[in-house]
Amino acid sequence: MTWLSKSLMHTRGVARGAVGTTHELTEERQGVFHYTIGPYSQPVLHIKPGDRVIVDTRDAFDGKIQTEQDLPSAKLRVPFLNPQNGPIMIEGAEKGDVVAVYIESMLPRGANPRGTCCLIPRFGALTGTDFTAMLNDPLPEITRKIDLDEQGVYWSRRVTLPYRPHIGTLSLSPEIDSINSLTPDSHGGNMDVPDMGPGSITYLPVRSPGARLFIGDAHACQGDGEVCGTAVEYASRTTIHVDLIKSWAIDWPRLETEDQIMVIGSARPLEDATRIAYSELVLWMAKEYGYDKWDAYMMLSQCGKVRLGNFVDPKYSVAAGVEKKYLAPEAE
Amino acid sequence: MTWLSKSLMHTRGVARGAVGTTHELTEERQGVFHYTIGPYSQPVLHIKPGDRVIVDTRDAFDGKIQTEQDLPSAKLRVPFLNPQNGPIMIEGAEKGDVVAVYIESMLPRGANPRGTCCLIPRFGALTGTDFTAMLNDPLPEITRKIDLDEQGVYWSRRVTLPYRPHIGTLSLSPEIDSINSLTPDSHGGNMDVPDMGPGSITYLPVRSPGARLFIGDAHACQGDGEVCGTAVEYASRTTIHVDLIKSWAIDWPRLETEDQIMVIGSARPLEDATRIAYSELVLWMAKEYGYDKWDAYMMLSQCGKVRLGNFVDPKYSVAAGVEKKYLAPEAE
Amino acid sequence: MTWLSKSLMHTRGVARGAVGTTHELTEERQGVFHYTIGPYSQPVLHIKPGDRVIVDTRDAFDGKIQTEQDLPSAKLRVPFLNPQNGPIMIEGAEKGDVVAVYIESMLPRGANPRGTCCLIPRFGALTGTDFTAMLNDPLPEITRKIDLDEQGVYWSRRVTLPYRPHIGTLSLSPEIDSINSLTPDSHGGNMDVPDMGPGSITYLPVRSPGARLFIGDAHACQGDGEVCGTAVEYASRTTIHVDLIKSWAIDWPRLETEDQIMVIGSARPLEDATRIAYSELVLWMAKEYGYDKWDAYMMLSQCGKVRLGNFVDPKYSVAAGVEKKYLAPEAE
Amino acid sequence: MTWLSKSLMHTRGVARGAVGTTHELTEERQGVFHYTIGPYSQPVLHIKPGDRVIVDTRDAFDGKIQTEQDLPSAKLRVPFLNPQNGPIMIEGAEKGDVVAVYIESMLPRGANPRGTCCLIPRFGALTGTDFTAMLNDPLPEITRKIDLDEQGVYWSRRVTLPYRPHIGTLSLSPEIDSINSLTPDSHGGNMDVPDMGPGSITYLPVRSPGARLFIGDAHACQGDGEVCGTAVEYASRTTIHVDLIKSWAIDWPRLETEDQIMVIGSARPLEDATRIAYSELVLWMAKEYGYDKWDAYMMLSQCGKVRLGNFVDPKYSVAAGVEKKYLAPEAE
Repeated sequence: MTWLSKSLMHTRGVARGAVGTTHELTEERQGVFHYTIGPYSQPVLHIKPGDRVIVDTRDAFDGKIQTEQDLPSAKLRVPFLNPQNGPIMIEGAEKGDVVAVYIESMLPRGANPRGTCCLIPRFGALTGTDFTAMLNDPLPEITRKIDLDEQGVYWSRRVTLPYRPHIGTLSLSPEIDSINSLTPDSHGGNMDVPDMGPGSITYLPVRSPGARLFIGDAHACQGDGEVCGTAVEYASRTTIHVDLIKSWAIDWPRLETEDQIMVIGSARPLEDATRIAYSELVLWMAKEYGYDKWDAYMMLSQCGKVRLGNFVDPKYSVAAGVEKKYLAPEAE
Repeated sequence: MTWLSKSLMHTRGVARGAVGTTHELTEERQGVFHYTIGPYSQPVLHIKPGDRVIVDTRDAFDGKIQTEQDLPSAKLRVPFLNPQNGPIMIEGAEKGDVVAVYIESMLPRGANPRGTCCLIPRFGALTGTDFTAMLNDPLPEITRKIDLDEQGVYWSRRVTLPYRPHIGTLSLSPEIDSINSLTPDSHGGNMDVPDMGPGSITYLPVRSPGARLFIGDAHACQGDGEVCGTAVEYASRTTIHVDLIKSWAIDWPRLETEDQIMVIGSARPLEDATRIAYSELVLWMAKEYGYDKWDAYMMLSQCGKVRLGNFVDPKYSVAAGVEKKYLAPEAE
Repeated sequence: MTWLSKSLMHTRGVARGAVGTTHELTEERQGVFHYTIGPYSQPVLHIKPGDRVIVDTRDAFDGKIQTEQDLPSAKLRVPFLNPQNGPIMIEGAEKGDVVAVYIESMLPRGANPRGTCCLIPRFGALTGTDFTAMLNDPLPEITRKIDLDEQGVYWSRRVTLPYRPHIGTLSLSPEIDSINSLTPDSHGGNMDVPDMGPGSITYLPVRSPGARLFIGDAHACQGDGEVCGTAVEYASRTTIHVDLIKSWAIDWPRLETEDQIMVIGSARPLEDATRIAYSELVLWMAKEYGYDKWDAYMMLSQCGKVRLGNFVDPKYSVAAGVEKKYLAPEAE
Repeated sequence: MTWLSKSLMHTRGVARGAVGTTHELTEERQGVFHYTIGPYSQPVLHIKPGDRVIVDTRDAFDGKIQTEQDLPSAKLRVPFLNPQNGPIMIEGAEKGDVVAVYIESMLPRGANPRGTCCLIPRFGALTGTDFTAMLNDPLPEITRKIDLDEQGVYWSRRVTLPYRPHIGTLSLSPEIDSINSLTPDSHGGNMDVPDMGPGSITYLPVRSPGARLFIGDAHACQGDGEVCGTAVEYASRTTIHVDLIKSWAIDWPRLETEDQIMVIGSARPLEDATRIAYSELVLWMAKEYGYDKWDAYMMLSQCGKVRLGNFVDPKYSVAAGVEKKYLAPEAE
């Protein structure tokens, strides 16, 4: 029996950890991919709490960058970036609930899987961009194709990186807005938090009927901040187990792993993302773990963990976490 | 003959300054107001370039704050704030064009017009908010009702402010996103720039067929920054003259008055909004006014004007401008 | 009788507006100029409250940029930029007091006065810099020499700008720190606020015995934000009238003109500079002008004025102001 | 033989890893502690490259907070916070060199060592502060005294935290400025990076003759960001081994551990601190590890590590690192 049986998902979810039907969301079944996350698109799948979905995600470039000669400026057009599978409707989900998404596995798709990393003009953390507008010439445009498998990401003759997959973009629909899939916010979106890989559970607030789950943007590996603007973007076969927690009022995405609970804030400047993450974590500890608010705040000052997600997208994402061992009730 | 005849609107617009049909967009005709700006709502009006529209705008609180005992937290519910008239479809407008909106006049509506200013919990520039998350207690919640007419805004027995109306929120639809009416961005939105009053022309980039013009959020007056989060919000009768400029590629809203041209950037942090505004202004001067790019940049360092719009909304807005007299060609 | 007789300087200053001895601080008398503002340098002048000082300031480049072929990277060396006159000791000044500096006049020095404006690599608002680090190539390095006199600044054949001089850098010493003359903070420093010209009074908090007044960085004109990084920098003859206000606890520089009172905040990001300025203004109105704190806050949301000083230096400066007419007590 | 023999310190330092004289810098010998880091204070010790120093540091509150009834606002006075030992002069150090500081050990001082954590009004990441000025009431003022030893930090009956000491403030003198010991910048200062503990080597740029090393602010443990504003502050006996690397031009502090190299940037907003850290790391890899600049940038996007130091001080600190195993030359 794993830690999962004690997770918030298994102890509070409608399905109590039980696994229902397994659905396949192939490219064919998906049909039209989405570039905006909202309540206005046609559902592709209806599932029950406890069901599993095997999702065939496309890479963030929609598979249009096939060789190192394919330049982003020639092949891509804003805002048609970062295609998303979904929306998946979850039976019984209503505003005020939470959807839990446990990532079971992420596998590369295709015979000779390759990832793609691009340096895109006016995009990335160390260059002027559309939002941090500069008059400097842009950086060079570069495309890298990288062989990968479940053993490694073969970056260069010199460097092999570990295969550490995660989902970059995971969302429920906002109530009335529709937000492009490049932008993270309180609905989820393009958070690019490396901890959101196999073995993690993400909790997202439901804001529209049926929740409308979107998923995409698999990364074979990614450093903190995704500093050049892109990870090793690849087409994945991702298996998720989905449950519904009724009447849990959360304002921002939360993450649970074997060892930690985390909150993810997305905002600019980066300190505001960090403030959201830490502030929600303090309030969570006070509300659900028996902490005095000020004790939680002061203790996180001694043991809080921060993960930088993206700091290249229209909003930056930061996760703040605490180890579960510090949440256990006082021993008698 | 006024300066208007030499404006970009009159010299480049399809209607060349001619005035067409006058439409009335009453509350009744509007029917459902909108809280999100996007391509998914039903048009309420179809007009031709050169047409005028008399728009009855509601105040940003939807008229729900009637007395000083009506508190925002009891009467309002996010995201149903800042109701917008529209969408108004403009014949012939296509992606890559620009819609010009000249504000002819703004009058208070009703027999005894009153404006409303609220201190809303966790909203405003000098308090912790949802995005600049703090653990402090919120500020007190306060509602002020203010008598006003075309001669003045009667703030208190001590202070009468000038009636200086402007439109807080003016937008065309994004291409695929739908953005709540509290947020400004490159499509326009909730910019809260005081210069956007009677006598000004706003230029907005068209991104969806028919442009889909939204308008609302009239302010009887407003200081730079709208620092407490709300202006003197009121229900207005606003008359606009609308034209279409074909094939003018602009990325951010622009503003023209008798004396200045301006660009409005919206982003966080505030320096990014300012960078966008100034950077677009430099490029505009280089592209259309015969300036060397570096000369424009260095000259704005000596005579550029900055107006702080809102710095309380999810993105902050800044206008950067230059006086038209400096744009005249060199005398022979 | 001018507005000055009702100014805070004349009504609260030790000298009550009386003019004492006039001192001359020539380049010769100054001898060594200073590039850091602190308590560790040798005084060059001792004055009494009410004395006048005629100060010969050097330009921000120390006069080393003589022709348009003189490039900053060849002629300048960090941190030896922005030379300051002083420190001037003010008799009786102690921690907790305020020094008032009224600028009487600013004249260009020399036979054929010229100003200098440079585009300096990795400096300015629209380029990557040492603090907003980017991997882009720097902008070109450009030097402009500009003829000027009291009638105008002859920017180009096309454009003559008005001569609107102001002092860029005005400081008292911090208590124990010494801060380079490029950086503004609560002690004053390199604020670059265009309102700080002839006819204005600046109030600075005293933090070390004798106050230790520094002054320099005259600009013949400057746009909001000083966006390219430099104004029309010139050598000036600046006449100031100095007084001392005992026991006035202020945390940040304040400015008084005929029509307005302002507070200047300096910080990054820019919203923090603006928050400081507006927040101090609210508290000032509450403490000294009979305003309820929340009334002041809400009213500034309707009539507050914001001036962007520099947004190119290590900290950005913003002034927030209110018109004096709104500060008058309620008429009986 | 440890990894140290291959470290930059041992391979490039003047002493080549050899250990010279051991000095003791007791409280008595230190005499006057310093609250500002600059070239104007009296040296307390002269050492040679390769010498060791055992430093008795005071806690950040100067030992004035003795019980949980001692409140910061009553006991402390700005700017006399965070006392520093030093300056220690290093023989032969000149501008353009680097001083390497290897931390051998950090032990609690005194018979019953206790640490101190305070919630200080208007200080910390989740409250309005002097620089992020808000009108909200401050958070409550709270003092915690925490027993600790080399086995643990006894936070509460419920939680024991690991003893993971590090040095919060480590600096060389700026060239002409003197910077309060609360502020980090390119000279080092109050970075609060948890990796700067026993077993780490910090590299700091020399800017004044003799380097003038300052050290203080020991933390028994600290979370990422030091979110409430203070760590478990304690009086330590810290042993350092110091060496000098001649003619190594670095602009910001660097850190080496057994597994990683890191660069520490300090700025606001937080993205600027992160940009500095990552940008310097890219340039370092290009200059000294045979990386193409764009390859380094893109690879860090896949494997870069970010540590949030303080985000509560006048500037925020971020370390960006890469594992040493990725820096090895390509195998033949």
